[in-house]
Amino acid sequence: MAEENFDIAIVGGGVSGVYCAWRLKQERPHDKIAVFEASNHIGGRLLSVRPPDIPDMVAELGGMRILPAVQPLITRLIADLNQQLPQDQQIKLYDFPVDEPQNIAFLRGVYLRLADFTNDPAKVPYQLNFIDQGQSAGSVIVNAIEQIVPGITNPSLNEEQRRQMAQQAEFGGVPLYKQGFWNVLLRVLTGEAYHYAEDVGGYDSTLCNWNAADAIPWYLSDFGVSPEYKGFSNGFQQVPLTLAQLFQQLGGEVRLESSVSNIVSKGDGFEFQVKGRTIAAKSLILAMPRRSLELLAVTSPVLQEIQPLIGSVTPRPLFKLFTTYDSPWWRNTGYASANAKGEPTYVAVQSGRSVTDLPVRQTYYWPKSNGQPATQGHAMLLASYDDGDNTGFWDGLRAKRRQPRGAGLDVAPLADPFIGEDDNVQRNELTWHQYKAPRMMTEEVTRQLTMMHSLNYTPKVRNAAFRDWGDDPYGGGWNSWNIGVKSWEVKRRIVQPTDLPLYICGEAYSDAQGWVEGALQTAGYLLEKFGVLPFH
Amino acid sequence: MAEENFDIAIVGGGVSGVYCAWRLKQERPHDKIAVFEASNHIGGRLLSVRPPDIPDMVAELGGMRILPAVQPLITRLIADLNQQLPQDQQIKLYDFPVDEPQNIAFLRGVYLRLADFTNDPAKVPYQLNFIDQGQSAGSVIVNAIEQIVPGITNPSLNEEQRRQMAQQAEFGGVPLYKQGFWNVLLRVLTGEAYHYAEDVGGYDSTLCNWNAADAIPWYLSDFGVSPEYKGFSNGFQQVPLTLAQLFQQLGGEVRLESSVSNIVSKGDGFEFQVKGRTIAAKSLILAMPRRSLELLAVTSPVLQEIQPLIGSVTPRPLFKLFTTYDSPWWRNTGYASANAKGEPTYVAVQSGRSVTDLPVRQTYYWPKSNGQPATQGHAMLLASYDDGDNTGFWDGLRAKRRQPRGAGLDVAPLADPFIGEDDNVQRNELTWHQYKAPRMMTEEVTRQLTMMHSLNYTPKVRNAAFRDWGDDPYGGGWNSWNIGVKSWEVKRRIVQPTDLPLYICGEAYSDAQGWVEGALQTAGYLLEKFGVLPFH
Repeated sequence: MAEENFDIAIVGGGVSGVYCAWRLKQERPHDKIAVFEASNHIGGRLLSVRPPDIPDMVAELGGMRILPAVQPLITRLIADLNQQLPQDQQIKLYDFPVDEPQNIAFLRGVYLRLADFTNDPAKVPYQLNFIDQGQSAGSVIVNAIEQIVPGITNPSLNEEQRRQMAQQAEFGGVPLYKQGFWNVLLRVLTGEAYHYAEDVGGYDSTLCNWNAADAIPWYLSDFGVSPEYKGFSNGFQQVPLTLAQLFQQLGGEVRLESSVSNIVSKGDGFEFQVKGRTIAAKSLILAMPRRSLELLAVTSPVLQEIQPLIGSVTPRPLFKLFTTYDSPWWRNTGYASANAKGEPTYVAVQSGRSVTDLPVRQTYYWPKSNGQPATQGHAMLLASYDDGDNTGFWDGLRAKRRQPRGAGLDVAPLADPFIGEDDNVQRNELTWHQYKAPRMMTEEVTRQLTMMHSLNYTPKVRNAAFRDWGDDPYGGGWNSWNIGVKSWEVKRRIVQPTDLPLYICGEAYSDAQGWVEGALQTAGYLLEKFGVLPFH
Repeated sequence: MAEENFDIAIVGGGVSGVYCAWRLKQERPHDKIAVFEASNHIGGRLLSVRPPDIPDMVAELGGMRILPAVQPLITRLIADLNQQLPQDQQIKLYDFPVDEPQNIAFLRGVYLRLADFTNDPAKVPYQLNFIDQGQSAGSVIVNAIEQIVPGITNPSLNEEQRRQMAQQAEFGGVPLYKQGFWNVLLRVLTGEAYHYAEDVGGYDSTLCNWNAADAIPWYLSDFGVSPEYKGFSNGFQQVPLTLAQLFQQLGGEVRLESSVSNIVSKGDGFEFQVKGRTIAAKSLILAMPRRSLELLAVTSPVLQEIQPLIGSVTPRPLFKLFTTYDSPWWRNTGYASANAKGEPTYVAVQSGRSVTDLPVRQTYYWPKSNGQPATQGHAMLLASYDDGDNTGFWDGLRAKRRQPRGAGLDVAPLADPFIGEDDNVQRNELTWHQYKAPRMMTEEVTRQLTMMHSLNYTPKVRNAAFRDWGDDPYGGGWNSWNIGVKSWEVKRRIVQPTDLPLYICGEAYSDAQGWVEGALQTAGYLLEKFGVLPFH
């Protein structure tokens, strides 16, 4: 017999879980609703951590930005939340720069400025053909996409129109959704253009062999049309934390360190185990990605039946390593120039990212909470942001995956942590220390940062923290639709995959995989099943 | 109650399984011994298939060669078998060439001959430093290894001495076995030298982040010291087929299409299920790699206990695609030259391999059964031999992994097979047709072969067959030791991992992973447990 009963139990305290919780509690104030989260905090893959030595910076170990122009759900949600929040708790955004022309590309042993790709193509160490030479990596892929689905890059199309074109498209006589993005790209690009786009783009998994009909509109939204990103002054985690708080203010319950297992169908609802107790719920919402669902399925027969739906996406690793320093030493890797008036001026490397084909891949010069670059004093780098095979490189410099974790903790303890200068700084909010980087990883990233910046010396790292989202229970930083899957059908079906009151949502099964926008999209589909509108 | 009883049951009809069966039956003629094999044939990852249109060639869809100089066990076994076999059934070897100087390297959009790497380094499109320039890919890695473990490349050392040096070595103050091969290579090599060695070497997974203390002696044996390979005139599968036949002649039983599941400890031995029947065995030998053991563990509690040992290696995909043609068109991609006497002569591309950074990676100009190149008439290519990420490229052009397979079949049926010219040729030995390549895969490999050979046209493919060893139940073409594992302990312990009469062998947990030599090594350790010498 169940020891507790809920009307709705939500498993997973990421943004889709707490968003559903809040909206359902608003519409059903008398329902008993709880969120069960295995870790010791709300947020899932939004994890905003303040470094011990820099009060006005927030390291985004997880998701770090939005694209307001093509992401109406998160943009609207932030506006809605700000209407309800007091002035001092507002969610504030800043412009999040990426490709600054003076930043560095260290590729194939050659040092370039990002501006060189278009301004000085002869320097670029890739054998590009007449059409691709002088194009940015994004343009090369957008041009390729236009060859694969003629007309789809027309700027007058909206997101939904582009998705429908891709769903209905054929390429070489075969429906696009039955083909891999890598396969079709290599039909229209040279091998060199593909390597160029991958190396310069900074990601290995975005151009890999996932469902071409999904990858194409996804790429056009995210990377294609000179994207304008926004970052979060107090960290992206503020959004799910706010949602959880509002949910609790309405009487909803949030239970941390509450790992769910052994879900069985019982009567009209479900029973499951939490900390050795049996809990019953009339409706059950699993707000989690593929790997988490699979881990839950091991003990839950009700999920084993829907393995084919769950398996329609592939988790993709993402790795982030932050380091702090006494000063923003990278500013000195800029160059002296003359401004418009002919006056001597110094163009500093200070914001956005640099890129390399070393395993570091992408380095972001991290902004202050007001979005401005650090120009003096303690400063922080997102020293490495990488994916694909390169996560395997950093794997060798850390504790093994799937090591036992302490209760409520995301990560296993380190045998040989990097001893930070500010390890003794203990403030309440300092979850940073939970995510310490290993000593050898910190040494290696220092070596590669020195090399990619063409320096012989870089100052000592003060503090270092990392997160590899390939670890359990997430299995990946994002998920991609598999070849042959009709995502437009699966994304609707998986929301309520059987006749039972069992629901699934999250970025994994959305049109905006890897983005909070995708989490909110599928949460919206789920809320429809409860007769609740996503916004009111 | 068991419906049948055996003294020794061997699960897995690969080379280690049938070798154990034969040796045990020789020494214990009165024991009731059986080999249970899930597929319809003996051989495991040795799979030698004759193309329908070329009687004197054998496509090696699996393992294809040995290194006699460093592989005494397989060399000795072949000699032993030949002493017992009649003249017309002898196992015959031929010299298996690899890097012929006139062969092609199409890398970074640049066409080279393999000789150019050392003869004309200025042509080579990698920014190599003073030390690496003009070196072959193998030399670059061997030089790097010498920096990591000084003295280990001394040619007077034997295999065992090199392994011990690597096991005891430290690098940067940390034991080598706790470090990844990629991690330590990148400490002593430039990023460009690493890319060069990987691209030119032809494999992505050999230089990846596996246990450095295992990778280093493995690399030195297999690729380091100008290796001399031998191929098999009638296919490598002849070795396990012969072993199975000799075992049966002694009264042993081989049961094909006999998938084993639900192994439980019972009395002094075990019971398990085969085709709905319960079978008992006093001793149980699992001659299979990690992924097969894991699939068996799902229904077998006795294996779940030893998951950490089973998980000490990582399966690595390997992919092979063979194509046949009316003529060896690749001969024409050679060049006119003058011989020693100054007479005009044509240097044909006709044997060994060419290499590219396109997903094709390695193309072998397949020899006739006498080891000679095809110079006219029908001819065959190992059109693509690749691993790592590149297997993901071909994945997009084939049936999905883990599709249901017919009873006894290795592979799932194709929706859209390439219709070969000789599909109607049905001879008894023609298992080729079971391994047909998909139409789109065949078209794509044709496109890439045309490109890598700098041609505008290549003749029509007659027949095409492929095998991706990442598929279940193998999970990989070979297995590599994980970082942090003391392989020299695990390889001994896993042979009999508990107090029960349960034994494990195969290449996965050996010093020669991916080689038959490794399978025979661990089979030898296993036979010791039965008081049987590997050779007599």
